[in-house]
Amino acid sequence: MLYEFSDIIDPRRLPRRMKYLQYYILGLVDGEGCFSVSLKRQADARFGWVIDPIFHVTQSKEHRVILEILRRVFKCGRIIPKPGEEDRVYQYVVDSRRHLAEVIIPFFEKNKPIIKAREFESFKEIVYGLERKEHKDLDGFISLLKKAYEMPGERKYSLEDVLMQVRERVGASETIRRAPPGGGEDMVQHH
Amino acid sequence: MLYEFSDIIDPRRLPRRMKYLQYYILGLVDGEGCFSVSLKRQADARFGWVIDPIFHVTQSKEHRVILEILRRVFKCGRIIPKPGEEDRVYQYVVDSRRHLAEVIIPFFEKNKPIIKAREFESFKEIVYGLERKEHKDLDGFISLLKKAYEMPGERKYSLEDVLMQVRERVGASETIRRAPPGGGEDMVQHH
Repeated sequence: MLYEFSDIIDPRRLPRRMKYLQYYILGLVDGEGCFSVSLKRQADARFGWVIDPIFHVTQSKEHRVILEILRRVFKCGRIIPKPGEEDRVYQYVVDSRRHLAEVIIPFFEKNKPIIKAREFESFKEIVYGLERKEHKDLDGFISLLKKAYEMPGERKYSLEDVLMQVRERVGASETIRRAPPGGGEDMVQHH
Repeated sequence: MLYEFSDIIDPRRLPRRMKYLQYYILGLVDGEGCFSVSLKRQADARFGWVIDPIFHVTQSKEHRVILEILRRVFKCGRIIPKPGEEDRVYQYVVDSRRHLAEVIIPFFEKNKPIIKAREFESFKEIVYGLERKEHKDLDGFISLLKKAYEMPGERKYSLEDVLMQVRERVGASETIRRAPPGGGEDMVQHH
């Protein structure tokens, strides 16, 4: 039995071995987990937007213990009330890129999602791309952006709008950079 | 590897052993499955209502294969388009009481839900109660009804309304039964 969880749950309620608990977690995450990549406007980011991968699992407050189990198994992440539903829903959230790359992704590489297989593959490529700093140049950034938009889920902004804004911004800073010395700030330095 | 599934999914996408697949299913069902007991008006039922336990798992049409896997593991149940969302959502449904009592409940007795522990216990008590025909007399029926109403989920009718209707109906048939011979049908016999 998994006595190491006995301070948070009666171990008789858990699968008997860590290996089994891992497959339970795989199934739970395949159903209810979320490998998401959000896109946030951020004025001081190089291209005006930040690509933000997050792994999260949502659960009613009543069953928060399951989120504690996840946190203990993964040894990272945090549990927070879900914004907008603070009084009744909690989330286990991992958004540290290091934890995603070193803990979460290797776990689901070993225990592969079935339903969320494609979603996980895109998530993995984006996290690894960010780890390799591909988002630091324009082509890499656009390629990661397009990968994010291939993932399921609703988006506040269309890919076209974001690309247009990114290109306008790059164009503007290019123009400034090409201006004669003293004719303006080199905005590229700032981003 | 689980080659017995290779006609529906590449077995490399599945957990390597049946035991692991069972824990995957436990996790999936604990997150997304539903042990529900619906209550249906039915004029020719003894008390005017039928207590109807159903186990189901819902999935988008795109990932229907996961429902096929469930059907193959449980060797019972059926897959149907979800009423009202036929074009994009499917459900794996087990509503045969024999299959619930002999397959589904024993599986989740062995592989216990954590999140849905209480829901599953009530479901089990109700299915076993129906199997023991407790719903055939009024006290047993009311007790099963109350158990169903203790389960989470929205109800179209309040328990009070249903109980009132049940009692009115029993009262009416009692009255008829007590009426002199030839004074009316013995409705109890019909139900």
